[in-house]
Amino acid sequence: MSGSILGKYFQVSTWGESHGKGIGVVVDGCPAGLPLSEEILQKYLDRRKPGQTRYSTPRKEADEVEILSGIFEGKTTGTPISMVVYNTSQRSKDYSEIAQYYRPGHADYTFDQKYGFRDYRGGGRSSGRETISRVAAGAIAEELLKELGVEVFAYTKEIGGISMDEKRALKENIGKSPLYMPDLEASEQAEILLESKMKQQDSAGGIIECVVRGLPAGVGEPVFEKLDANLAKAVMSIGAVKGVEIGDGFAAAKAFGSDNNDAFIKKQDGGIGKLTNHAGGILGGISDGSDIVLRAAVKPTPSIARGQKTVNCQGREIEIQIRGRHDPVIVPRAVVVVETMVAITVLDMLFASMTSNLNGIKKFFAK
Amino acid sequence: MSGSILGKYFQVSTWGESHGKGIGVVVDGCPAGLPLSEEILQKYLDRRKPGQTRYSTPRKEADEVEILSGIFEGKTTGTPISMVVYNTSQRSKDYSEIAQYYRPGHADYTFDQKYGFRDYRGGGRSSGRETISRVAAGAIAEELLKELGVEVFAYTKEIGGISMDEKRALKENIGKSPLYMPDLEASEQAEILLESKMKQQDSAGGIIECVVRGLPAGVGEPVFEKLDANLAKAVMSIGAVKGVEIGDGFAAAKAFGSDNNDAFIKKQDGGIGKLTNHAGGILGGISDGSDIVLRAAVKPTPSIARGQKTVNCQGREIEIQIRGRHDPVIVPRAVVVVETMVAITVLDMLFASMTSNLNGIKKFFAK
Amino acid sequence: MSGSILGKYFQVSTWGESHGKGIGVVVDGCPAGLPLSEEILQKYLDRRKPGQTRYSTPRKEADEVEILSGIFEGKTTGTPISMVVYNTSQRSKDYSEIAQYYRPGHADYTFDQKYGFRDYRGGGRSSGRETISRVAAGAIAEELLKELGVEVFAYTKEIGGISMDEKRALKENIGKSPLYMPDLEASEQAEILLESKMKQQDSAGGIIECVVRGLPAGVGEPVFEKLDANLAKAVMSIGAVKGVEIGDGFAAAKAFGSDNNDAFIKKQDGGIGKLTNHAGGILGGISDGSDIVLRAAVKPTPSIARGQKTVNCQGREIEIQIRGRHDPVIVPRAVVVVETMVAITVLDMLFASMTSNLNGIKKFFAK
Amino acid sequence: MSGSILGKYFQVSTWGESHGKGIGVVVDGCPAGLPLSEEILQKYLDRRKPGQTRYSTPRKEADEVEILSGIFEGKTTGTPISMVVYNTSQRSKDYSEIAQYYRPGHADYTFDQKYGFRDYRGGGRSSGRETISRVAAGAIAEELLKELGVEVFAYTKEIGGISMDEKRALKENIGKSPLYMPDLEASEQAEILLESKMKQQDSAGGIIECVVRGLPAGVGEPVFEKLDANLAKAVMSIGAVKGVEIGDGFAAAKAFGSDNNDAFIKKQDGGIGKLTNHAGGILGGISDGSDIVLRAAVKPTPSIARGQKTVNCQGREIEIQIRGRHDPVIVPRAVVVVETMVAITVLDMLFASMTSNLNGIKKFFAK
Repeated sequence: MSGSILGKYFQVSTWGESHGKGIGVVVDGCPAGLPLSEEILQKYLDRRKPGQTRYSTPRKEADEVEILSGIFEGKTTGTPISMVVYNTSQRSKDYSEIAQYYRPGHADYTFDQKYGFRDYRGGGRSSGRETISRVAAGAIAEELLKELGVEVFAYTKEIGGISMDEKRALKENIGKSPLYMPDLEASEQAEILLESKMKQQDSAGGIIECVVRGLPAGVGEPVFEKLDANLAKAVMSIGAVKGVEIGDGFAAAKAFGSDNNDAFIKKQDGGIGKLTNHAGGILGGISDGSDIVLRAAVKPTPSIARGQKTVNCQGREIEIQIRGRHDPVIVPRAVVVVETMVAITVLDMLFASMTSNLNGIKKFFAK
Repeated sequence: MSGSILGKYFQVSTWGESHGKGIGVVVDGCPAGLPLSEEILQKYLDRRKPGQTRYSTPRKEADEVEILSGIFEGKTTGTPISMVVYNTSQRSKDYSEIAQYYRPGHADYTFDQKYGFRDYRGGGRSSGRETISRVAAGAIAEELLKELGVEVFAYTKEIGGISMDEKRALKENIGKSPLYMPDLEASEQAEILLESKMKQQDSAGGIIECVVRGLPAGVGEPVFEKLDANLAKAVMSIGAVKGVEIGDGFAAAKAFGSDNNDAFIKKQDGGIGKLTNHAGGILGGISDGSDIVLRAAVKPTPSIARGQKTVNCQGREIEIQIRGRHDPVIVPRAVVVVETMVAITVLDMLFASMTSNLNGIKKFFAK
Repeated sequence: MSGSILGKYFQVSTWGESHGKGIGVVVDGCPAGLPLSEEILQKYLDRRKPGQTRYSTPRKEADEVEILSGIFEGKTTGTPISMVVYNTSQRSKDYSEIAQYYRPGHADYTFDQKYGFRDYRGGGRSSGRETISRVAAGAIAEELLKELGVEVFAYTKEIGGISMDEKRALKENIGKSPLYMPDLEASEQAEILLESKMKQQDSAGGIIECVVRGLPAGVGEPVFEKLDANLAKAVMSIGAVKGVEIGDGFAAAKAFGSDNNDAFIKKQDGGIGKLTNHAGGILGGISDGSDIVLRAAVKPTPSIARGQKTVNCQGREIEIQIRGRHDPVIVPRAVVVVETMVAITVLDMLFASMTSNLNGIKKFFAK
Repeated sequence: MSGSILGKYFQVSTWGESHGKGIGVVVDGCPAGLPLSEEILQKYLDRRKPGQTRYSTPRKEADEVEILSGIFEGKTTGTPISMVVYNTSQRSKDYSEIAQYYRPGHADYTFDQKYGFRDYRGGGRSSGRETISRVAAGAIAEELLKELGVEVFAYTKEIGGISMDEKRALKENIGKSPLYMPDLEASEQAEILLESKMKQQDSAGGIIECVVRGLPAGVGEPVFEKLDANLAKAVMSIGAVKGVEIGDGFAAAKAFGSDNNDAFIKKQDGGIGKLTNHAGGILGGISDGSDIVLRAAVKPTPSIARGQKTVNCQGREIEIQIRGRHDPVIVPRAVVVVETMVAITVLDMLFASMTSNLNGIKKFFAK
């Protein structure tokens, strides 16, 4: 099968392993005429690059993206855009130990069961470095959405149980927090927690929230290709994500209809809006013109320095200690991954919505 | 676009509106040789049929399924299986009122924005009756999985905040509870809550849990086509679902690595297992041989008898009172929908996994 | 797998066997707002209905189409359109003989090899009746294309080696010939040939030509999703088709560059055109604004009354005589099948072309 | 849309322009465990490399392939295989002239119409160099098929009207002819013709034949995903191909049923075979165990040195003379392209056939 290709109109095809020659992605279906350069892409990639703060792995990875095709005279040509980040700083360390056992919380065992063997160097294909491809492709989607008046942004909502306070959260604070948390007080508390977890050779998880603003109503298809269904897939496909919710999400399961329904109202500009947004901007799988709001639950980093029990490849129970430089929390670096995966999905469905009704198509083809 | 088709190998193509001639589905990609009949399918459909208990709409709907193709001498032929449930009991009531405004929590407004107009009779395509197609198709998937030793079952975990107690929950109780709740004490409490909500002309939501047992390790593709990603899409595509989580899900976001990692162990039969199952049976997007555990958050029924504020199609603010017979909670009837959507997804990915490694393929084609 | 679903944007999902309950199709992805009725569809279906002339099987088949979903107040709603033709006149004859052996030129043997058994009644899924689904779905595509100024028409070019003379061919003659041949002289000669073949208990094949007129330049994708590639697939997927060519086709293989290249010219309206059309309206997989011209080679009907050698299901060599009422030539009835398959393909790629460049997309979403 | 991705199970995603940084391809869905190296791939690529004989462009292109991912310890890992051929010898010549007009027989005009502008250097994305990706990906498919006992080979059947004589054709001669023609006498005659065409600054086309041997019966899906339908798409998607036929192809349109039907026979090994193979190994879209035989019509190279009429981008009629080093015939270099495209398609459908019946699936998953 082909598990590394996503999308129907804006198609993203990724490749690469942690310790192979590089990580890359081909974007097929990007319209012609979008201004694009390595500089534009690099800004997105730098947001997931390790070593930016003390709460991410101190590994130095340049992660410089190179565009190999699909651009001519500074603009996309409409043909596939191939991008690559060559692996440059992977230490040629000894992986013979890690090859012999199955790390808890990792895909070592399942890869062996599926394929018969695995590229065990640094996680191989299931390494977090795989998300480089997602961010590079999603950066293009996000740039395209901007051209169409749609903004996508994400931030850390919670780390290790420490949650931001909506009242203190400010969008402009996101970049000021080393954890990409828009509530700087909560960010500081989370930092303290992380320090303590690092000392305990442990790790934390958290919640990322993503907002899509400016998306017109009518995007998303009823039944299986609902906008929320595709968002859930895209975000759940990110390595450490274990849950996804839209709008009130799991809280809606505890609410009652009279509270959970969003009343439609007449907006000041005369258009139709909603008094509240429990639905997270999606009704019946279709965008309703309000902000799309989505949250992803990220599990704690499975690689911890503390001793752990597991089995080796022969099935014998052993105790291991994972060496190496690992993130005490991957949430902050995953913020841009969630954001770009959402952008890819929203763009794909925006394109899909162009053939929803005959009037729109007729106008498009009218000379 | 084509939002009503799901799957890559086992493809499900659905159609039908609440008040049209019927609701149907075509299953393409079902292997030849599976014993199948209308009786087998009907058992699944009866689990979502309304009017079974006082907590579902008293509408009488026979919902009898008819197979139109793909079966010969009691077995599937390998060609498309077309199934239909004709709409027989839809009251020919007056829909002129509902046609004029947008019901809160429904897809009326988004359909109009997307398509320019809508079939307003009883929700049209976005009616809950659409799930008949899912259950009919998923019943086939579930029967196929049984033949391969894989069991899928679902139940109500929580209603209106009243949650089952794991210690009291018994699988054999599921069918004994009118709410499909395996903890009969919690079920009774939830019934009391529902009675009170019905009196208040209000509605409740809840959480459905689904378990896949017996799935071999190695199913699911790394990167985008992760087993959990596809499960999230399938389940989130069900009308009222607002959140999906795998294993510990959102709780994992609050946990620390030392607790959340599942230690691998040597099982009594000599195989490899896990001491705990926080991961919900999926590592790196691939099944690990443990139970797959998934939860869906279901919002409260948006149709409530209580007065509500909204706008009409001209954008004028009005107050409405939705008449008709509506479910005070849809969770119990949605249990089989979640279960069958999970079955469709697991089967599709099981098929996908057949080409994971050359050894398996060679054996398959060896004479 | 799912061999009965075609298309990416305008998706067609077919089902049904020759002697089952009916033949049907679900169209998913038809935009909202197209006027559609059973009367409109029936006109297309009547063109493939048997028993219209003495050169088709004298079987009486009403082949009346019924629309089950997707239409509201005379227009498509944007949701799936389910259509069915119930089988009414299939004789309940004895198929026990045909079940025992493999008819030459038919799919009996390959079905048994693939599926382990087969629905042997009248060809089952591989019956020519399967094309009813194609015509019903393609009729919708053709109606949509008309709304966008694109015309598709097909006709018989050759039967049993008797070819039409381009100079004598008139579009308005197509309907006047019982063979749908626009050159009435050639049509008469072909009729004489068919009479003689019928006496000899033999059958003939022929060539169908299809033209797409009014398609704007720019439709079709470079590389794999070329317009001609998708046309070739769609037309080759019709039961008896053994070859497809575009423009000069196989004749181009014998031509030289200086003759085969079409010079671009300035048209009288100031636009760019071509002096000749050896390319058949497609350059680099993309429409160039000229007529798209395609030809399909149709093999002679394999069911002939004459004695034939074959083997039975046990592999013993036997001599058989196929009874029943068969078409001496299927070309005339296949004309509308080719035409509608071309329409489905062209429409799908027309939709695809809407996201080719950013300027077009921006205009579409501008308020 | 995404016109550069092909396949459902074995997915091929290509990128690159004639004069960009390189040409590449990602193969997703290759099973784990196939021995693979750059040396193996290079043998296939060398067959399409220019400059091998005087009948291809004298441009020197190293076309050395590099594998970037998906291989570990000499074997495929089951994850995406990324391959690239960097463009090294593209002359940095002046393309300002070619940018101003539309070459007859090329995609210049259609690209401009579709995308608004084009990368005009050497044909950009629609250059023949795009086929490098096809050959690299198809080489993997062909190697996989070999492991499963399936052989694919192709050769030149005809050039400029000079056709090989079946009686003189020997498979082992293919490599001995500079034109890959298995009849060395016809090859010599074709060479003489080409010499004369080169002097006349003209070009020739031809026919390529491809055979698939050893494919088990039962591969290919009825209805739309017929084996022949997918072969037609794959081969027609190659730049200069204008026609595709299976078995007797267009000749079948002139034949009669009594001749065209292939009688089934009992083979010496006791199995079922066919006396003749007019059908080209496919019945009802499904392989019948005989050789699959396919032919592709290749148009003459559109780039000829002779003066030609055309229009410039402003629509003014002009006369041009295309400079540069062009192939007088591309048929010989396209042989391996047809062969590998056939291999990709056959492999994809072989995988699809693994879920045709429940017995096979049960055996696969039995422990």
